[in-house]
Amino acid sequence: MVTAAPMAVTNRQLRLKSRPKGMLAPGDLELVASPIRELQDGQALARVRFLSIDPTMRIWMADIPQYMPPVALGEVMRAFGVAEVVESRSREFKKGDKVVGMTGLQEYVVAGGQEPMPFRKIPSIPFVSESAFLGILGGNGLTAYFGMMEIAKPQKGETLVVSAAAGATGSIAGQIGKIHGCHVVGIAGSDEKCKWVTDDLGFDAAINYKHPDWRDKLAAATPKGIDINFENVGGEVMQAVLSRMNLFGRVVLCGLISGYNKEDPGLASFATVLIKRLRVQGFIVIDYAARFNEAFTELGKWMMLRKLKHRETIVEGFEKAPDAINMLFTGGNIGKLLVRL
Amino acid sequence: MVTAAPMAVTNRQLRLKSRPKGMLAPGDLELVASPIRELQDGQALARVRFLSIDPTMRIWMADIPQYMPPVALGEVMRAFGVAEVVESRSREFKKGDKVVGMTGLQEYVVAGGQEPMPFRKIPSIPFVSESAFLGILGGNGLTAYFGMMEIAKPQKGETLVVSAAAGATGSIAGQIGKIHGCHVVGIAGSDEKCKWVTDDLGFDAAINYKHPDWRDKLAAATPKGIDINFENVGGEVMQAVLSRMNLFGRVVLCGLISGYNKEDPGLASFATVLIKRLRVQGFIVIDYAARFNEAFTELGKWMMLRKLKHRETIVEGFEKAPDAINMLFTGGNIGKLLVRL
Repeated sequence: MVTAAPMAVTNRQLRLKSRPKGMLAPGDLELVASPIRELQDGQALARVRFLSIDPTMRIWMADIPQYMPPVALGEVMRAFGVAEVVESRSREFKKGDKVVGMTGLQEYVVAGGQEPMPFRKIPSIPFVSESAFLGILGGNGLTAYFGMMEIAKPQKGETLVVSAAAGATGSIAGQIGKIHGCHVVGIAGSDEKCKWVTDDLGFDAAINYKHPDWRDKLAAATPKGIDINFENVGGEVMQAVLSRMNLFGRVVLCGLISGYNKEDPGLASFATVLIKRLRVQGFIVIDYAARFNEAFTELGKWMMLRKLKHRETIVEGFEKAPDAINMLFTGGNIGKLLVRL
Repeated sequence: MVTAAPMAVTNRQLRLKSRPKGMLAPGDLELVASPIRELQDGQALARVRFLSIDPTMRIWMADIPQYMPPVALGEVMRAFGVAEVVESRSREFKKGDKVVGMTGLQEYVVAGGQEPMPFRKIPSIPFVSESAFLGILGGNGLTAYFGMMEIAKPQKGETLVVSAAAGATGSIAGQIGKIHGCHVVGIAGSDEKCKWVTDDLGFDAAINYKHPDWRDKLAAATPKGIDINFENVGGEVMQAVLSRMNLFGRVVLCGLISGYNKEDPGLASFATVLIKRLRVQGFIVIDYAARFNEAFTELGKWMMLRKLKHRETIVEGFEKAPDAINMLFTGGNIGKLLVRL
């Protein structure tokens, strides 16, 4: 065991000061400098290198029923990140190790083994960046994998529509559809995003929902109707997709980002679900934790074979994290959104 | 083959004249007397004895996407009924036979073999009335059976909540839950209905949603949360039930009657579906047509064993059919609602 010298560094943290109404306002996350306590036996100090900026963070900030307790006021804002161990009194982690886990929005994190989700060491893989473990080999890849393989169960020749198709999860879900022989149509919020998912990722078509005639284009791109909806957006986009679903279609309910800034996220009509005998299934990736290694193996294999591509939008500087969160809701990112410290 | 004498009778019909907005207005269904055409070879004339009054009729009247074409303006209003053959040029049906099928809202129907759903002969079973073939041994029984057995798949000890619990379908769904060892809670719109489903049908509890504290009572009646929701109502009732669902619960989406008189039936929040990882599955009983005999066998067996009870609310007189339809939406009926001619 390595004995740590007393720490002198200061940790900058973004703490939840007030619950946002709509978009984040400047004061909702408060930048606080706090001293780092001396490490105890079993603990390691890691310096955060990348923060994962995810739509679910907006849910964690709200005082509504959710799949984890909301972040309490005054707490460091919850976030996934990649960090490098700079000092260790732990047998598990040594200086220089890269780890991934719930770092929170802060510059340093103490990994102590008592976290609800323990930090994992990141293996060194040629041509795979450490940030990939926050996206394609992290929560987004796992979410797309289990949503597609366990709920959608795509069959060759079926039509899959993915909303937020150029997002970190949607872009992977659509590619998994292509791997399984589906006709894949993406919905995204800019022509640039649409071009990326068709030209680079191999989607069969992509619809920019900001064009006034997007519903007609969606109809034209799905001449045989829609069998699977991998839904990340909710609201009007979801309604339009549901209206084109085939009988007995499956809706993988992954996210409802269009509503996260509103009072009642995900208000939509169940009538179509009834009339078309759809199966709508909500899921959260943590339910599949016991099978993460299976997913990593498959995702890694597809990456090697170049069947799965990814892209990152990187915002530089810790203090920009609140702006980055808002960027998710204005559609500023393509692919995985990260903050680099 | 029996040769029919020329017919002299007049057929009174209720034709859809205008599409109702909200409740049916007096002129929406027009009473028309029409002569009965001479029977062709293969046809039989049957006099309608009972008409089945079902919430889905309100959907058929609306010009919205649905699981069958809406009834066209000027057409006889679609309805299920039981009729007795009074004259026949068909090998299949002889005078005196009782048949069940889509009679429409009229006094006489010609069964000719070219119907999309052919008429079936009703077997004579001791102590089972012919009207039972419109309810517990008809569409309602089948709907409850397949919704429970194929979608809910109830397990012993699970908590089942049924809305419109004193309705024709809900009352059977709840009893099927009891047969499978569930803790069954009904939601209904009067104390009398609640008393019927608990005292006569054996539900463990029933909640009158017209009492101001009904949500608290629902919570008290479902201390272990809710595993299965057999949903017939939608709207606020469904939202309250969803909010108490356990993780990975199943919602059998059978009906959304609270919305059928509104512009967008079934508007509700998908957020709970996501957060609680629910599976919401819409279904229509006709999808299981190939397995109806299996269901009739099971339902009949449970009736014999007195594990399945039913009740009818009978409105007398053909011309009262429009009022009877409205009664569904004001909650006037307990059990199966029928019009006797």
